[in-house]
Amino acid sequence: MQKLQNTLEKITPPDREVEKEAQNYLDSLTKPIGSLGVLEEIARKIAGITGEVKPKCPKKASILMAGDHGVVAEGVSAYPQEVTPQMVLNFLAGGAAMNVLSRHAGAELIVVDIGVAADLPDNPILLKRKIAYGTANFTQGPAMTREQAVAALEVGIEVAEECIKKGVSLLGTGEMGIGNTTPSTAITAFYRQCDVKDVCGKGTGLKDDLLGQKIKAVEKAIAVNQPQRNDAIDVLAKLGGLEIAGMAGVMLAAAANRIPVLIDGFISSAAALIASHLHPHAVDYMLASHLSEEPGHAIALEMLGIKPFLRMNMRLGEGTGAALAMPIVDAALKIMHEMSTFADAGVSTALV
Amino acid sequence: MQKLQNTLEKITPPDREVEKEAQNYLDSLTKPIGSLGVLEEIARKIAGITGEVKPKCPKKASILMAGDHGVVAEGVSAYPQEVTPQMVLNFLAGGAAMNVLSRHAGAELIVVDIGVAADLPDNPILLKRKIAYGTANFTQGPAMTREQAVAALEVGIEVAEECIKKGVSLLGTGEMGIGNTTPSTAITAFYRQCDVKDVCGKGTGLKDDLLGQKIKAVEKAIAVNQPQRNDAIDVLAKLGGLEIAGMAGVMLAAAANRIPVLIDGFISSAAALIASHLHPHAVDYMLASHLSEEPGHAIALEMLGIKPFLRMNMRLGEGTGAALAMPIVDAALKIMHEMSTFADAGVSTALV
Repeated sequence: MQKLQNTLEKITPPDREVEKEAQNYLDSLTKPIGSLGVLEEIARKIAGITGEVKPKCPKKASILMAGDHGVVAEGVSAYPQEVTPQMVLNFLAGGAAMNVLSRHAGAELIVVDIGVAADLPDNPILLKRKIAYGTANFTQGPAMTREQAVAALEVGIEVAEECIKKGVSLLGTGEMGIGNTTPSTAITAFYRQCDVKDVCGKGTGLKDDLLGQKIKAVEKAIAVNQPQRNDAIDVLAKLGGLEIAGMAGVMLAAAANRIPVLIDGFISSAAALIASHLHPHAVDYMLASHLSEEPGHAIALEMLGIKPFLRMNMRLGEGTGAALAMPIVDAALKIMHEMSTFADAGVSTALV
Repeated sequence: MQKLQNTLEKITPPDREVEKEAQNYLDSLTKPIGSLGVLEEIARKIAGITGEVKPKCPKKASILMAGDHGVVAEGVSAYPQEVTPQMVLNFLAGGAAMNVLSRHAGAELIVVDIGVAADLPDNPILLKRKIAYGTANFTQGPAMTREQAVAALEVGIEVAEECIKKGVSLLGTGEMGIGNTTPSTAITAFYRQCDVKDVCGKGTGLKDDLLGQKIKAVEKAIAVNQPQRNDAIDVLAKLGGLEIAGMAGVMLAAAANRIPVLIDGFISSAAALIASHLHPHAVDYMLASHLSEEPGHAIALEMLGIKPFLRMNMRLGEGTGAALAMPIVDAALKIMHEMSTFADAGVSTALV
């Protein structure tokens, strides 16, 4: 609990003065004012986050949190639970989509076993920080104890801070966990105070007839557990997952250490909701990436107030959308470093 | 005319069998079916275009066509005409947004003076293929003669084929030309048969009171010139621009030589409309990139039937959106080459 408390106390708002300076500089470059849109927003936001008007192109890492979910017993996923460790082995062998896209982005990939319901082999890219062999079935009681939720948040903080100590200055968040759109749906519907069916999607490919089971499981979880709205750790423990907690911890560490963190898809945005309820300024350090096919993703991002700029119709998770956004973050920062100003280039700024 | 005719005769549909093979291979990879969305669409489309199930990551070039527009006399742009050659000098010096984003994408940038209303210095990245010192004011008659339009199309074909001979296998299209959203609005509104005001935007930053002048100029151009709907060269000559013609030529050459070409913003999509009316299969070789802030862009892309996947709120042109999409094309092809299949990885495909 001490590590979490210390991290939350370190979080402050970004530097709004540096943001303004960055925008003034962007306005001096050889392009119509504001015409680079989201690239300008990213550059300005990272300036405020880091306190540097022209931040360097970042050293990148993707942190992939893996965990299992007791609620799969309710038939909420198209895949059986053993796919979680099978996919972790695929990450360790380098053959998953997230390996390909992390290499493409120049990002180190770190896989964290924070709650897989199986033992995993030693591997240089695997961090073994298991809190439990999966969560409990949250239709019958809390997914985790409060202590487990805090411990999982602190694993996320620790792993992120290990990266930051090695010089990483942009983090991507990803996950693997069969069934994990179900707790993400629960967290999002609970905070939005809306009908579960408006948030609930087909995950990795659930058939229509099983979608009803998933909706019922989430409704039951909220009814049985009665989370406390003003206590994000309670919401996380009762409705969340170990990898969701770990991702929220990564986001808090990014904010406390003043580096940007990329939100991925629906599960990542559910973690971001938890982080933003733990500290109101955590969201100022988050960048959205893609808009996934899961209906709850748009709802969560809207609550967070961050806008996705990739429309790839992806619904894979793993951190793939965040990884795909990394070259765009690089592009935004290169604009700050490499473009000429109107004065340098001798281009007329005269407007009609 | 002979070069254009030969190019059009070479265009055939993509290979639908290879597309199917590519999709079957994508379905064997360790991810839920279709879960990589647009990345899968891009990989499948390029497979059909090239005839290879797993196309290599492409060698890239961005072709930036520069030309001026007589219609600027009607006060349709926020910037004076001399900004066109000034910005060309900026490209030659390497300091424009398009230089930064082309370098970022690993794409060679080729600047073509196809119709700038000024003489330009010699430079290794500048191709001097000027057809005229800008177009005529199309509110008073055709923007170009039919011969000029064909010559400009053929310049585009030639420049693209010079790239392709050097091994380029992905082309980006870009442009510079003060006033060129005005002819793009004319082409788009004419083909859509809709009110000009529904297509017309503020270009690089036109004030509200001047937007009315731009709308009137386009309405007058269409009324005065009465283009022939079934004759794309007539539409291009009367309502287009030299750089628009050059870009359309690049797109036709890409289709004739079976390589993909990235469409950029509104001006690029107006050129794509011309290309697609010159040959119905030209569009099968086009990939959309971003959706610009110009309202006509979405209308043109909808007519073309291609979907943009970047939502950057950009409105700069130059080819910047196409350049920003190039790393995503690379990512799509790396998925084909580097991911494991379910069989290789020993991951269960069992669905509930």
